[in-house]
Amino acid sequence: MATTLAGAGIGQGVAYGRVLRMSDPLPEPPDEPSTLSPDDERARVVVAVTAVAADLRSRAERVGGTAAEVLEAQSMMAEDSTLADDIGERLASGKTAERAVFEGFAVFRDLLAELGGYMGERASDLDDVAQRVIASLSGRQAPGIPDSEAPFVLVAHDLAPADTAFLDLGKVLALVTSEGGPTSHTAILAREKSIVAVVGVAGADALADGTEVIVDAANGRVTVGPDVAEKAEAERRIAERAAALQGGTGPGTLADGTRVPLLANLGSAEGATAALAAGAEGVGLFRTEFLFLDQRMAPTVEQQKAHYVALLTAFAGRKVVVRVLDAGADKPLEFLNDAHEENPALGLRGLRALRASEDILREQLTALAEADSETDADLWVMAPMVSTVEETEYFVRTAAEFGVKTAGVMVEVPSAALLADRILKHAAFASIGTNDLTQYTLAADRLLGSVAGFQDPWHPAVLRLIGDVGSAGAAAGKPVGVCGEAAADPLLAVVLIGLGATTLSMSPAAIADVRVSIARFTLDQARSLAELALAADGAAEARDAVRAAISEALNHNHDQSRNEADQ
Amino acid sequence: MATTLAGAGIGQGVAYGRVLRMSDPLPEPPDEPSTLSPDDERARVVVAVTAVAADLRSRAERVGGTAAEVLEAQSMMAEDSTLADDIGERLASGKTAERAVFEGFAVFRDLLAELGGYMGERASDLDDVAQRVIASLSGRQAPGIPDSEAPFVLVAHDLAPADTAFLDLGKVLALVTSEGGPTSHTAILAREKSIVAVVGVAGADALADGTEVIVDAANGRVTVGPDVAEKAEAERRIAERAAALQGGTGPGTLADGTRVPLLANLGSAEGATAALAAGAEGVGLFRTEFLFLDQRMAPTVEQQKAHYVALLTAFAGRKVVVRVLDAGADKPLEFLNDAHEENPALGLRGLRALRASEDILREQLTALAEADSETDADLWVMAPMVSTVEETEYFVRTAAEFGVKTAGVMVEVPSAALLADRILKHAAFASIGTNDLTQYTLAADRLLGSVAGFQDPWHPAVLRLIGDVGSAGAAAGKPVGVCGEAAADPLLAVVLIGLGATTLSMSPAAIADVRVSIARFTLDQARSLAELALAADGAAEARDAVRAAISEALNHNHDQSRNEADQ
Repeated sequence: MATTLAGAGIGQGVAYGRVLRMSDPLPEPPDEPSTLSPDDERARVVVAVTAVAADLRSRAERVGGTAAEVLEAQSMMAEDSTLADDIGERLASGKTAERAVFEGFAVFRDLLAELGGYMGERASDLDDVAQRVIASLSGRQAPGIPDSEAPFVLVAHDLAPADTAFLDLGKVLALVTSEGGPTSHTAILAREKSIVAVVGVAGADALADGTEVIVDAANGRVTVGPDVAEKAEAERRIAERAAALQGGTGPGTLADGTRVPLLANLGSAEGATAALAAGAEGVGLFRTEFLFLDQRMAPTVEQQKAHYVALLTAFAGRKVVVRVLDAGADKPLEFLNDAHEENPALGLRGLRALRASEDILREQLTALAEADSETDADLWVMAPMVSTVEETEYFVRTAAEFGVKTAGVMVEVPSAALLADRILKHAAFASIGTNDLTQYTLAADRLLGSVAGFQDPWHPAVLRLIGDVGSAGAAAGKPVGVCGEAAADPLLAVVLIGLGATTLSMSPAAIADVRVSIARFTLDQARSLAELALAADGAAEARDAVRAAISEALNHNHDQSRNEADQ
Repeated sequence: MATTLAGAGIGQGVAYGRVLRMSDPLPEPPDEPSTLSPDDERARVVVAVTAVAADLRSRAERVGGTAAEVLEAQSMMAEDSTLADDIGERLASGKTAERAVFEGFAVFRDLLAELGGYMGERASDLDDVAQRVIASLSGRQAPGIPDSEAPFVLVAHDLAPADTAFLDLGKVLALVTSEGGPTSHTAILAREKSIVAVVGVAGADALADGTEVIVDAANGRVTVGPDVAEKAEAERRIAERAAALQGGTGPGTLADGTRVPLLANLGSAEGATAALAAGAEGVGLFRTEFLFLDQRMAPTVEQQKAHYVALLTAFAGRKVVVRVLDAGADKPLEFLNDAHEENPALGLRGLRALRASEDILREQLTALAEADSETDADLWVMAPMVSTVEETEYFVRTAAEFGVKTAGVMVEVPSAALLADRILKHAAFASIGTNDLTQYTLAADRLLGSVAGFQDPWHPAVLRLIGDVGSAGAAAGKPVGVCGEAAADPLLAVVLIGLGATTLSMSPAAIADVRVSIARFTLDQARSLAELALAADGAAEARDAVRAAISEALNHNHDQSRNEADQ
């Protein structure tokens, strides 16, 4: 009989295929005397280090975004001069290049690891660089994505940006990881690229290469060694879902005709065509970090404006919500924030950082207002990480000063949700970022595996805060969007509408599933489901209560239509 | 005319005296060739490093608590072997001991600082160690607390644990810092030791040694160069407050006779006598971290039990609330949590960490239950960092299993406050930790200077969460305590009672002020003041609204008594 493993499913897809695992780490190089001279070994190290650093740098250039930062930092580590001196001394004492690199990097990784905190993360980055250099020295494949001709189900502990930057998505049927939660790098990648994924799967580390598995994201299950019937059922569901998604087009609409626009989360103007093709009715979250990350200086007003004009032109006649720069010590920019923070997620980030470097905010608002005046989209601008009424007033006032017509705020800090009634006296709209809101409400780092279980936007405490914002929006007659990952969950999307969300914004790949899901319910039904979720004790209970109510209603409808047919 | 500087006042005191500043950092040692041999210089370094490491270690042993951890880590840095090798090479090239130490530490601090995040903090610890070693080499006073025969007002950028561990409190009239907020190390120290303090004072860095100042904590003001009238007024207030505090004894009671027990926050059983002398009616928060911090292994059940018996014996017949171990990556214990976390405040800490190492929790509960059965205090036990109903059930069930009679939870995570109604179905009581609750609600690190402005428990969002817990407690007929710094603010204490707090726990030094303050109001008045604070836009507005209402009522009473006298 087949074994079933459980985890957190991302999206609604089903996939079926054979496992291929991320390759294992290289063995420790033996501590034997070198047969070459120290100078020859040194030359080998220089060649390998240069190659690895160049490779990391060129990857960084090609991928962009946060992954680029990580890769760029790694390339700098590879060429660190203190490290080179240390390795040089080891070579002078007659060690092989592989061993000297192994030991030299180990000393530095231990030094960092001992000091705790953020350094542990950097220590593992050093390990990764060391593995790449040793692999290059010994002519082996660096640990990472396996090569395969046939499509496969990729199984890993977790995927790092360096792993996925060059993942050939055409080959990957599904992703299964033993670590990580619904907002891990793997999960975000899966959503963005519409890859079937189940993350945080206990037992996934034991899956061997070549094992047949069914990966069922809708139910958060991995079936190991399925039988013929299970495989046939999987094939049927894969075909059925493809058909349903083909059928559902047009604007987001509830069963009673209530319109709930479905918008796209975008990270650059290049995604516009794909978002429109996926049925996006506009942009609910345009992240502007990409304009800033590639440089040590802020972009000029003209450079920014060109991007905004391209974006607004692509969405002419539609709503486009742009978020001003969201940076902080966790997303450092040299010109904005060079402070060391012990808890960067609780630090000088988002609007706090912009306010401390107001020239950047002023230039961005200027570029946005100028781009708006030359195009025909409906531009809304919002600030990230707003926690107080005073910050709201500040942002709205400053945005107006620079000619922005519609200014609002992200609600991702609990205090902003709790004071939404007062904040919406000043802001034209609110957009709820469920990832950070969940992280702060549960006080659990959304990128930390050991507390990943808390990162669930179904938690009734989070839903209650969302409901507070929804009620405040209804009372003030102002729109309330949701632009966090929660909006991409087809079932939770219905609950969010019941809590008062007037638009939903998500990865374009999720739009089709959400459109199909919300069309099955009226606004009253969505509100009843939201009440059920709010009354639950925890996230799992909320999800179960909503699922149970829906399947009961479906059975009821089914019985009813059978009765009608009998009459 | 006198200049007035503004900051955050800690407590209600007033002090008057002359400024003495923390001494400046040592100058950079010149890069001149040594006149001694490398071996002689090496011997000097060994002596200095050994002395500094021993000094830091002996301070660590004497002070205990978190300060001990920092000092212990510094002593290990001083004797790091990689660092010693680096310094040795510099000596071999003919440098002086001072210069070699300066350069060697600088290389390592830069390496750490480059990597960002938590490492910045450790980099400044390395700087501090380097300064101490260089001071020892050159026979100078290490940077830190000034020596003075006469009492003085200590002015500093901010105070570190190493600075204050040996502060002679008899000499310090008041503390003034340019950095830090109401939960900085300086503020906590001031509260614990009942020292007048104003922190985060813009302009404090410009105060010169010998300047006369009045430090007015109640109004958050520092008056520089006061005139005769101002000095006389300060003297009058100092005398008046001393008299008021002398007068107010007995249990915490509102004007209408409602009892609100005033309890002590304690960090070890040694504080019991002083707490009772200060009028504590029991213990509202007994921190148990001190039992665990001095060792690399957890203490045995017997070792723990001895401490608990001492504590419970001192408070025979009274309530004692013990918090089980609150550790995490920000308060690392080798046997509990060795993970590196990017945001330790959002990591595996408190009950989360205990659950992952359940043997420690089981032993602590066993020791507590055994101590309880042998003594006559009323022992309550609570878990820190509870975020969900499920965690509450887990803790209450486990505590009962090991014989604990009354088990409750800390409410310091927003989700726990939002679900207090469900949590209090399982927990016997709730105790609100306002410091962490504020930190998470506003998403602002309470130890980070650049976001210190957000760390204010007067914020209406925080008050609303406290009110939710108060209402849930009243509905369930279960006690709700407040044990964060907020309870030590005499005015906020009244608001907390209005929000439903049934007990307040604080540094023993704050009890007298709070007793005097709450005795001025009835429960209905406290509720009206709480409504005013809840309706405000922000923390400052809440505080101002409550102050204005009170002074209006006082004037009214004043007019009334005058009218009555006229009749």
